[in-house]
Amino acid sequence: MSRVDIERKIQDENDRLAEENRKVFTEAGVFVMNIISSPGSGKTTLLEATLDRLAERVNIVVIEGDISTERDMDRVRARGASGVQINTGGGCHLSSRMVADVLEDLDLSDAELVFIENVGNLVCPSTYDLGEDVRMVLLSTTEGDDKPMKYPAIFHEASLAVLNKIDLLPHLTYDMEKVEKEIRVLNPEGEIMRLSALTGDGMDAWVDWIMERARAKKASLADGG
Amino acid sequence: MSRVDIERKIQDENDRLAEENRKVFTEAGVFVMNIISSPGSGKTTLLEATLDRLAERVNIVVIEGDISTERDMDRVRARGASGVQINTGGGCHLSSRMVADVLEDLDLSDAELVFIENVGNLVCPSTYDLGEDVRMVLLSTTEGDDKPMKYPAIFHEASLAVLNKIDLLPHLTYDMEKVEKEIRVLNPEGEIMRLSALTGDGMDAWVDWIMERARAKKASLADGG
Repeated sequence: MSRVDIERKIQDENDRLAEENRKVFTEAGVFVMNIISSPGSGKTTLLEATLDRLAERVNIVVIEGDISTERDMDRVRARGASGVQINTGGGCHLSSRMVADVLEDLDLSDAELVFIENVGNLVCPSTYDLGEDVRMVLLSTTEGDDKPMKYPAIFHEASLAVLNKIDLLPHLTYDMEKVEKEIRVLNPEGEIMRLSALTGDGMDAWVDWIMERARAKKASLADGG
Repeated sequence: MSRVDIERKIQDENDRLAEENRKVFTEAGVFVMNIISSPGSGKTTLLEATLDRLAERVNIVVIEGDISTERDMDRVRARGASGVQINTGGGCHLSSRMVADVLEDLDLSDAELVFIENVGNLVCPSTYDLGEDVRMVLLSTTEGDDKPMKYPAIFHEASLAVLNKIDLLPHLTYDMEKVEKEIRVLNPEGEIMRLSALTGDGMDAWVDWIMERARAKKASLADGG
């Protein structure tokens, strides 16, 4: 079997298992987000800020993907999430198989939201469906305003792009309009949000966006789909 | 052939071609650095600042690796470098084959330094030798102070770790000692430098470090190796 054949087989198998994961999530009535970004764009900080706003009234489960360490899982557990850590041991993205393997360790019984924090990598996770409702890309202002066209796949695939660390804009040379324009070229239908997970600026809109979709999914399931 | 067998075959073939590239670079008497980091850590800005300090007296060649666009090559050409852009078209790291394929397009005749800017990715490029003298990891302060242990392979492999964007430290919560300590655990023999490519702080030490090694290599070759 050639390398290309093997890659296609891996992608097909990933898609098949992603559909199975999606059925499990749908039966549990949970809304699932797959969060993708470079290392250090603020995925875990965004989860912490989200948990601070929601954990008292919404049951939230987190699947933490990382090459090594349980650091991120420790951080979100401290803010009230349950969940599991997946260590890829060198692997550059999560796969639907890795998620399927931890599903039985998750208590989805009265959960409303599942966040999957992917491995910090703006390239490899782009095309791997994990069974999520929304694939989201997080990009921080400190990464520079030239990134969408340089990493086009994830901006094309993600239905939501969140621009984080807007609190640092006064200290940077950064053209927000340019970034948003490039994202819209790559994904005309996608949504774009600006926020600072650290200061809380934009967090209300983010939380409303998620909860609206989570409740719409639940209502649609209650209506028989 | 299994996936593991194919991966081993790819790595072996990469190592073999990397040695061939190394011979070409050594015959040309050039010192070669392979620069690896997350997207947006400042690889290209570091090259611009380096060119501003060296391009008038040293002939510098740059191989720019990127998924898409020629943006980085345009930037370093504007500062006086010659070189080529490699677009991987989705590939998450440069390989020695990609570098070998562009060697004939490079004018190494009176070059002293070659910089290879890898694809922005802290995971996949870690173990791919391109034929360089120094594999270097660049980490910016805005990525957070927990990164080395979360991305251990590159910090273990790189003989030089450069901590960039120290100009932003007043606006961040960041423990520099913690980061350096983790890097030393992963790589006790490695060197660590702090700088800001933007403000120039630390750039003199960086430029001296490179030129000292480039001249030592050249002197060693003149002595017959």
